[in-house]
Amino acid sequence: MAAEFESLNKTLEKNLPAEDLKEVKRILYGNPVSDLSLPAAAVSVAAELDFELAGYKIDAAAEELRQPRLVRIGAVQNKIVEPTNMPIAKQREGLHNRMKDIVKAAALSKVNVICFQECWTMPFAFCTREKQPWTEFAESAEDGPTVRLCQEWAKRYNMVIVSPILERDHTHQEILWNTAVIISNTGEVIGKTRKNHIPRVGDFNESTYYMEGDMGHQVFQTQFDTGRISWFLVSLQGSHYILVALHLCEPLWSIEARNAAIANSYFTVPINRVGTASILEENNPRSSYVAAPNGSRTPGLSRTRDGLLVTEVDLNLCRQVKDKWGFQMTSRLEMYAKSLSEAVQRNYEPPIVHEETTK
Amino acid sequence: MAAEFESLNKTLEKNLPAEDLKEVKRILYGNPVSDLSLPAAAVSVAAELDFELAGYKIDAAAEELRQPRLVRIGAVQNKIVEPTNMPIAKQREGLHNRMKDIVKAAALSKVNVICFQECWTMPFAFCTREKQPWTEFAESAEDGPTVRLCQEWAKRYNMVIVSPILERDHTHQEILWNTAVIISNTGEVIGKTRKNHIPRVGDFNESTYYMEGDMGHQVFQTQFDTGRISWFLVSLQGSHYILVALHLCEPLWSIEARNAAIANSYFTVPINRVGTASILEENNPRSSYVAAPNGSRTPGLSRTRDGLLVTEVDLNLCRQVKDKWGFQMTSRLEMYAKSLSEAVQRNYEPPIVHEETTK
Repeated sequence: MAAEFESLNKTLEKNLPAEDLKEVKRILYGNPVSDLSLPAAAVSVAAELDFELAGYKIDAAAEELRQPRLVRIGAVQNKIVEPTNMPIAKQREGLHNRMKDIVKAAALSKVNVICFQECWTMPFAFCTREKQPWTEFAESAEDGPTVRLCQEWAKRYNMVIVSPILERDHTHQEILWNTAVIISNTGEVIGKTRKNHIPRVGDFNESTYYMEGDMGHQVFQTQFDTGRISWFLVSLQGSHYILVALHLCEPLWSIEARNAAIANSYFTVPINRVGTASILEENNPRSSYVAAPNGSRTPGLSRTRDGLLVTEVDLNLCRQVKDKWGFQMTSRLEMYAKSLSEAVQRNYEPPIVHEETTK
Repeated sequence: MAAEFESLNKTLEKNLPAEDLKEVKRILYGNPVSDLSLPAAAVSVAAELDFELAGYKIDAAAEELRQPRLVRIGAVQNKIVEPTNMPIAKQREGLHNRMKDIVKAAALSKVNVICFQECWTMPFAFCTREKQPWTEFAESAEDGPTVRLCQEWAKRYNMVIVSPILERDHTHQEILWNTAVIISNTGEVIGKTRKNHIPRVGDFNESTYYMEGDMGHQVFQTQFDTGRISWFLVSLQGSHYILVALHLCEPLWSIEARNAAIANSYFTVPINRVGTASILEENNPRSSYVAAPNGSRTPGLSRTRDGLLVTEVDLNLCRQVKDKWGFQMTSRLEMYAKSLSEAVQRNYEPPIVHEETTK
């Protein structure tokens, strides 16, 4: 069953009559996105190395005073390469090599900004409850081997790289963090941001592995058409896109990141790892996609295969949606700032209204 | 096309093979909800008076120390009854009579809490840009004719009623508000709450008709299993369910209220009006449903017919999901209280990180 059911999209396409399919897709995915034709060289690298390569385009309306601000976003999902009982260095090397090939296909596809999956240099070990040997995958976000490698790729391909790793903070008690490193297309580390909301859920009890982020929400300015990147649920800081790697289970997966894109007038790029490792019962696959501020989304990548999703977006869409829907004018932030400030007080009493007779 | 495409659910059921259908539904709707069998008397009232009647059940696990806390929620969607060029009193009377019948079917279906659609006593006039005669539909939320009628029904049927109306605030400059009145099963008005986020969107420019709510977010305690009701996007105040009536367009409709249910561990009941009025090009139908804190949702009512959706929920599910996913422990409210308080300052400068070389 899992093998046959590769993606929701494919199942719908196979079974629904054309007219119904169009309407179902509009309801599920919003206004249709167009296909983006990718260079033959990239397509053949993907075929040869056995990963899915998909291209979509999310347009904005033409404006008189601004040119389109096109950015190609690459989202990579992948399985681990080596078995989890191999030496750490070997496992990491396998992933580094795999990613090198995918990044090359991304460069051939003219990707400007690429994002890998959460803690991409390691298996998803947090559900094992074992610390050893998994914490050995942690490395410095400033000069660890993975950052150095990404810097090389970024410079070679003129590509911004968002590289989420398990970070070892050598200067502060060797704390572990779940960190995304943002590397400029010049090869410079622009900065990093740390995961703020750490699941405390059954086997995903990640809060025993690493600390809650202490950097708040940051936005990173890159050279691509003033595109501004954040990582993990952000908001008021003028981001144009958010690269995420989340969440609990498949039915939620298609909702949360899309809702965030709509509510905040930016693009979101939810990325999830694929595959079944001996340490991970991955029975709840979620495939990567891109969500737009106007409610549109791309179809998801395969739920079972490695993949590179290339999406060309026009950043002008963000402001166009803001002007159209005006959420930034109706969000009542002062009210929420006040309510939240009250609600976090220890003696907070929720304003519950009772019936006179039951008071 | 619109006539044929009655609902997403029916189209999927008609076309997909059984195994695929099961998987598609799981991805789209979460864990399946069960059907709730409704009394024959209610079914025949619905058939006779030509409205859809659908019943679902959203269970929780058994607990040792708490009994199930079952509440039947009724959600009503309906078209206007009289043409919009009829006298105001006549139009309102038509809707009052229609609702009387639907409420009767709800009582036969043992509904404990019922909610009508936004401004249910009038056509959706806000997209006309005309003030007259539409503002004449406004009435007092304390002793207007609609409140008095609802009080009667509530008492007669032992049912909590959430009655959203256009409110005329006679004691404060005759301001108009978009208000939900909460009426106890004893017939007492427990209180009211006012819509806080007013669309400023093209023809839905509702902010020219009525004021942004000034009551914050309230929660209303009723007699049904300590069920607590709110109206419109609420949060930290211990609600068990939220009754909403929103939003922009169909693809968003299925996302926002579900996301709210998941993020806040409560039930949401998004209700939308149906039909095409001469003053409203309703080309973007959204059908009412119930979303649960665990990501499940009921199928939607018809996109084109009047309907009563009866959903029996076990309120115990709210705390069970909190205990399982622990969002209330990982939400970092202090961080957001601080960030929001900073962000609403006029001189706020977003923390944008620049590349060294482009500073």
